[in-house]
Amino acid sequence: MNQTQTNLSAIARDDVADLARGAAILGTGGGGDPHIGALMALEAIERHGPVQLVAPADVPAQAAVFSIAMMGAPTVMVEKLPAVDQFTNAVEALATYLGRQPTHIVCMEAGGVNSTIPVVTAARMGLPLIDGDFMGRAFPELQMVTASLYGIAASPMSITDDKGNAGIFTTVSNLWTERLARAATVEMGASAIVSLYPMTGAQAAQSAVAGTLSLCVRLGRAVRQARADLADPVAQVARELGGRVVYQGKVVDIVRRTTAGFARGEATFQGVGPDLGTVVEMSFQNENIVVVRDGQVVATAPDLIIGLEADTGEPITTEGLRFGHRLALVVAPCDERWQTPAGLDLVGPRYFGYDIDPVRWNTH
Amino acid sequence: MNQTQTNLSAIARDDVADLARGAAILGTGGGGDPHIGALMALEAIERHGPVQLVAPADVPAQAAVFSIAMMGAPTVMVEKLPAVDQFTNAVEALATYLGRQPTHIVCMEAGGVNSTIPVVTAARMGLPLIDGDFMGRAFPELQMVTASLYGIAASPMSITDDKGNAGIFTTVSNLWTERLARAATVEMGASAIVSLYPMTGAQAAQSAVAGTLSLCVRLGRAVRQARADLADPVAQVARELGGRVVYQGKVVDIVRRTTAGFARGEATFQGVGPDLGTVVEMSFQNENIVVVRDGQVVATAPDLIIGLEADTGEPITTEGLRFGHRLALVVAPCDERWQTPAGLDLVGPRYFGYDIDPVRWNTH
Repeated sequence: MNQTQTNLSAIARDDVADLARGAAILGTGGGGDPHIGALMALEAIERHGPVQLVAPADVPAQAAVFSIAMMGAPTVMVEKLPAVDQFTNAVEALATYLGRQPTHIVCMEAGGVNSTIPVVTAARMGLPLIDGDFMGRAFPELQMVTASLYGIAASPMSITDDKGNAGIFTTVSNLWTERLARAATVEMGASAIVSLYPMTGAQAAQSAVAGTLSLCVRLGRAVRQARADLADPVAQVARELGGRVVYQGKVVDIVRRTTAGFARGEATFQGVGPDLGTVVEMSFQNENIVVVRDGQVVATAPDLIIGLEADTGEPITTEGLRFGHRLALVVAPCDERWQTPAGLDLVGPRYFGYDIDPVRWNTH
Repeated sequence: MNQTQTNLSAIARDDVADLARGAAILGTGGGGDPHIGALMALEAIERHGPVQLVAPADVPAQAAVFSIAMMGAPTVMVEKLPAVDQFTNAVEALATYLGRQPTHIVCMEAGGVNSTIPVVTAARMGLPLIDGDFMGRAFPELQMVTASLYGIAASPMSITDDKGNAGIFTTVSNLWTERLARAATVEMGASAIVSLYPMTGAQAAQSAVAGTLSLCVRLGRAVRQARADLADPVAQVARELGGRVVYQGKVVDIVRRTTAGFARGEATFQGVGPDLGTVVEMSFQNENIVVVRDGQVVATAPDLIIGLEADTGEPITTEGLRFGHRLALVVAPCDERWQTPAGLDLVGPRYFGYDIDPVRWNTH
């Protein structure tokens, strides 16, 4: 990740479209359609003004940091628009339970709609938003955050639905938080809003992946400007992320299955251009997890595996994959902490059920 | 129900076995093996002394009444003994959330293990126990209580498991409390402890089915004494409940299926003695719901449909039904409030999926 770039000091109206597209890129196939999230963020900023961004290192050590995220199937959100009250309700339910009012809002997952929901929440609550997240991308389960690597507890957590139901969980492990929250989410209609990992400013500074909201805006801007300049948007995305284009191909087959609340499947590609004659199979579980070219594993989670429309650089989510789609696959390095043994236990290919060693973006 | 009988002022060591057997009778096929509950109650009373019983009408209007119950598959309890700490933990979790300490413990369901769990909890917490419940029997879902008929909310509620996980739900309806608590229970391993319907003494006095814990003890005692006197225990149970023996037969077929966390099925009987030559089919969903004799519906929920071993009067739960078992079926009147239109909406045969009109115990 290009940390030398200047980060933003606020997210204003004109940043929202770039933020949403960049969030879809970091979504690595998951995180859902960013359009809804962008519309809600625009409306909130128009009403309440720009949202101040604070670097994790600049958050006071004793700050009360509250996160906000959507849990469940992002595809449901398109049909069942979340009431924006739900976001503030989730934060307030947890604040009441803890007897502590939030001083900062933070993003858990800088991918897809979960990049814009904290913007909406911070705008509505008039609070600063921390420029960072705890994945540096999207992952499907709530224990898959850098905060887990520092022993920060996911619970107490709150969960709310669009009907007015709410819950608080206190659990013995972050994996149990995931299990109970997942069960409640499924019952709430496959989509819920959660506030979890309540932490201090010091904990946030230590554990967050810094600068990822600014990175989203830069990524979105890079695509937009490359299009305007008739340059190559895919190459710009790879450059911004410090990664590379590993493949160009057309979708020739897609198998999908929805199991235990996740969208799993495989997409098969036939190479085009420099990759003519080669075949890629990409496996996904909400997010893209493994890329195999001609029988050889060339990329795995936790590195970022990003499918972009070859001509426009538009990020393609796994549910948007269609037969005949021409995609470029970009692979980029994840936050270094994910490549530690503890990180790989949480988000390596074996956790997702693939009996293969993790492969890093620059190996092949 | 025979309300003219004297109720108990306390539950002592020597009452526990009778209480447990009577609770299995009011369990109407559900509520699980009362043996485990009896062992826990014995241990608690030996350690903490007898549990004081208070009639609902004698509870101070401003009392803080907290309930305690097991939710889920009672069969699981036999393999996974609940830690008794879980009962007090559930009450204390709700008390902390509400900022109000309990003055009285109450039973939600006077059937099966849920009759003895409140005895254990009251003994451990040194609190009086209300002599009553909110079903007058057992029912499978948590909104199926007389409290619902008075608009008393099931939530805020607490839920705990044997691992140390806990949750609080606040919901928009008692049906939603059931849905979210059921999902959490399934995830917690098909068995959880809940404290719900927090209410005042005035609400408890208004909505409870009075005297049902004393009734359990009387029922158990009636069976025990009839055996000692070489009298007919089945007839004694029918008399105590103001009901009648509708059938005597042998189990010739049982079909079971476990769906959505419930034990559903049908048992077929061939008549013996006075019922020789007749066939009965009894349908159950945790509890016994419908009895059909030679094609005619002779009993339905919400009336009590109780299977007793013909010779001994021992109550037989639906999971205990075996081929060749000789049973007497006793049908007895439920609390009158269940026979109102609102009551039948909650617990009539149509709610359980049988497209038939409710039939009352004294119709045929």
